[in-house]
Amino acid sequence: MTISDGAASAGSRELAGLSTGALREFRDRERARYEAIKARATPYNLARGKPATDQVALADQLLTAVSTPEQCWAEDGNDCRNYYGSPQGLIEARRLFAPMLGAPPEQVLVANNSSLALMHDVIVYALLTGARDGAVPWRDQRPIRFLCPSPGYDRHFQLCEQYGIEMIPVSLTGAGPDMEEVERLAADPQVKGMWCVPKYSNPTAETYSSETVARLARMGAADDFRLFWDNAYAVHHLTDTPDQLDNVLEACAAAGNPDRAIVFGSTSKITFAQAGLGMLATSPANMRWFVSRQSTRTIGPDKLNQMRHVQVLRNDAGIATHMERHRRLLEPKFAAVQEVFEARLGGTGVAVWTQPRGGYFVSLDVLDHCAERVVALAKAAGIEVVAAGRTFPLGRDPRDRNIRIAPSFPPADEVRAAVDAFATCVLVAATEHLLADRGVNA
Amino acid sequence: MTISDGAASAGSRELAGLSTGALREFRDRERARYEAIKARATPYNLARGKPATDQVALADQLLTAVSTPEQCWAEDGNDCRNYYGSPQGLIEARRLFAPMLGAPPEQVLVANNSSLALMHDVIVYALLTGARDGAVPWRDQRPIRFLCPSPGYDRHFQLCEQYGIEMIPVSLTGAGPDMEEVERLAADPQVKGMWCVPKYSNPTAETYSSETVARLARMGAADDFRLFWDNAYAVHHLTDTPDQLDNVLEACAAAGNPDRAIVFGSTSKITFAQAGLGMLATSPANMRWFVSRQSTRTIGPDKLNQMRHVQVLRNDAGIATHMERHRRLLEPKFAAVQEVFEARLGGTGVAVWTQPRGGYFVSLDVLDHCAERVVALAKAAGIEVVAAGRTFPLGRDPRDRNIRIAPSFPPADEVRAAVDAFATCVLVAATEHLLADRGVNA
Repeated sequence: MTISDGAASAGSRELAGLSTGALREFRDRERARYEAIKARATPYNLARGKPATDQVALADQLLTAVSTPEQCWAEDGNDCRNYYGSPQGLIEARRLFAPMLGAPPEQVLVANNSSLALMHDVIVYALLTGARDGAVPWRDQRPIRFLCPSPGYDRHFQLCEQYGIEMIPVSLTGAGPDMEEVERLAADPQVKGMWCVPKYSNPTAETYSSETVARLARMGAADDFRLFWDNAYAVHHLTDTPDQLDNVLEACAAAGNPDRAIVFGSTSKITFAQAGLGMLATSPANMRWFVSRQSTRTIGPDKLNQMRHVQVLRNDAGIATHMERHRRLLEPKFAAVQEVFEARLGGTGVAVWTQPRGGYFVSLDVLDHCAERVVALAKAAGIEVVAAGRTFPLGRDPRDRNIRIAPSFPPADEVRAAVDAFATCVLVAATEHLLADRGVNA
Repeated sequence: MTISDGAASAGSRELAGLSTGALREFRDRERARYEAIKARATPYNLARGKPATDQVALADQLLTAVSTPEQCWAEDGNDCRNYYGSPQGLIEARRLFAPMLGAPPEQVLVANNSSLALMHDVIVYALLTGARDGAVPWRDQRPIRFLCPSPGYDRHFQLCEQYGIEMIPVSLTGAGPDMEEVERLAADPQVKGMWCVPKYSNPTAETYSSETVARLARMGAADDFRLFWDNAYAVHHLTDTPDQLDNVLEACAAAGNPDRAIVFGSTSKITFAQAGLGMLATSPANMRWFVSRQSTRTIGPDKLNQMRHVQVLRNDAGIATHMERHRRLLEPKFAAVQEVFEARLGGTGVAVWTQPRGGYFVSLDVLDHCAERVVALAKAAGIEVVAAGRTFPLGRDPRDRNIRIAPSFPPADEVRAAVDAFATCVLVAATEHLLADRGVNA
């Protein structure tokens, strides 16, 4: 991850350095721009990390990949149109995703369309039956706490919220969470879990360093503490030199904590979002633990959709080739965000943003106490972004400064226009805030 | 449901009425047959309620039903290849299954491939967050008890077992559970749920009478008591005069208990088993309750597979036509079971069995204390049936007499041979038992 405030570019454009008069003038100009945007009332959406239509279309072969009865038969002689087999999913599918997940096929489970659902199920199994066979259910050890590197993925935090799990925000460093903080906090036996999006993180786009992974693997923690390793962007590169992430399962095994990590993956942003496959990989003991509970919940996943994915993606190289096509569609959009932010916000000192090398998001920090105002201005002008604070546990950003920008869905020219309009909102809010600090209002 | 012991057919063939010498002779003849079967060692499977390959093939249109990008667009303008919409599923799919579930589309949720998974999720949401908004979580009201009409579906009971829910077996009458017993037991505020397979029940094939439904709807029970109404065989008729089941949602609403019932359904035995759709219907309040929790678990179900089902089944009449085709394939198999049991066990007084008018099972009661022996004999001869006792909570049939026969998967001639061989096992076990009662052994 690289963080930019565009300071390198311009001469001094720092807003805080302007005289009150000049600042007021700047504000009035941006306000005028803002009113013009509002008058145009063009709706823009930068809210959802959602593939564009031309991206999902890259996987249209899935629609015809298994179109005859003969193609429904798995290599083990079973019919994917009928009940059978293990809740771990087709061996063909487990083999396909094993390299992406960093585990042998026996330690891989391929499920239905949602990796979030798998994370949910791990949590409820741990709450109700204990995180390993014979362990005390988490629910009988309350309070239960999770470490939450923040800003992070709102849906992770909502899972905790739903089940009364206390969330402890942990700051991020650009190479993963602050490990001093994590090691100190994980020593608390009530801490049972930690959310990690270890590669091209949502939303900061950072990738955990080798040191971060090693320290997470070996740090002191409860025996039933689990790393929820949501490697959602494992193969979602935006450069020729992909970030490298260490294998957490191997690191945990080497550190003598083989059951610490559960790796999650998904094809939601590889093939069809919501009609793809969710999956997990973990230690043999954790796999037995999960499968025994999951087999009570369901006879097994939809194996036909797994077969379709096997036919279309074929192998790890097939996944890489497919992801190259995504990259070509995504790159211009991410480039547009950088160009516009650089042009409009560079050197102003009122915003820093990430320059992602992969994943789906740009993370923008505005001046403290300004994010809610920016989002409200944007909303009133028809630009949708996720609510300010949503990237923090309980929706509370203590500094009210982080905003997640998702440029994947709209066409590139629309992204450019939307981000330009959004930059205006940032500048209006920032100048208002700076003027208010000087006792000048509206 | 009709129960037969074939007594009407033969003169007196009752084994208990035979002299010890004649009984021994009978036993030796059946033992000789059994040894011959064992020697042939032909493997038979009567264990799984699994559609045959020609049955799943009836839905092969699903493989090509949505084969172009244009067909992926839902009537609300959304793309089924991408993230969107409500966790309730496509409105097209909810409309399709609304009549089968007996609820308007707004009260229907269509999910992924497993209705069992939906039942599981209702249970964990109730355990962890309470069965209605603001209610005390079941887990904080322990002990929690479920009423379990038995014999019943083993996977229902396993869900209770996994989460430490006490199970209270309730006897069945041929028109549903013994309502005197149920009403008495449901008055216990610790009783929070009841498993019901109300039509062509698994395994007894009975359909709950209007009186049963009405009494379940109006009986006194805890406010957070729920009927788990697993209407898995709603449209799975084997006669021209389908059983009629009253609408439990309407009955509960009329009785002032609108949130009491949750109706589950599935296409597992309509289209593709394990690659079909699971669904539920319930009151508006329960739907809001479920959706709010389910939206935390997952962004939503695979809507492409829902679209495929809409294209192939079209409407309620389309489902009925499709089910007629299943019936034609299943009828000869169920007829074979009746013929063979009648011929081999009729009038012997050592077995009674059901004559199902729908569903997937024949329920056989052998002499008390004989079911385990019968199943062991069958297993040794290569005939697989579910373990004796599996149709009861915790796998314990107090009288050790019930065995579930599933004739759907093998071809009809194989069913005939398998059931014939199985009848031999029944007769060997019964004669051994009767002789042991007279002090005669091996």
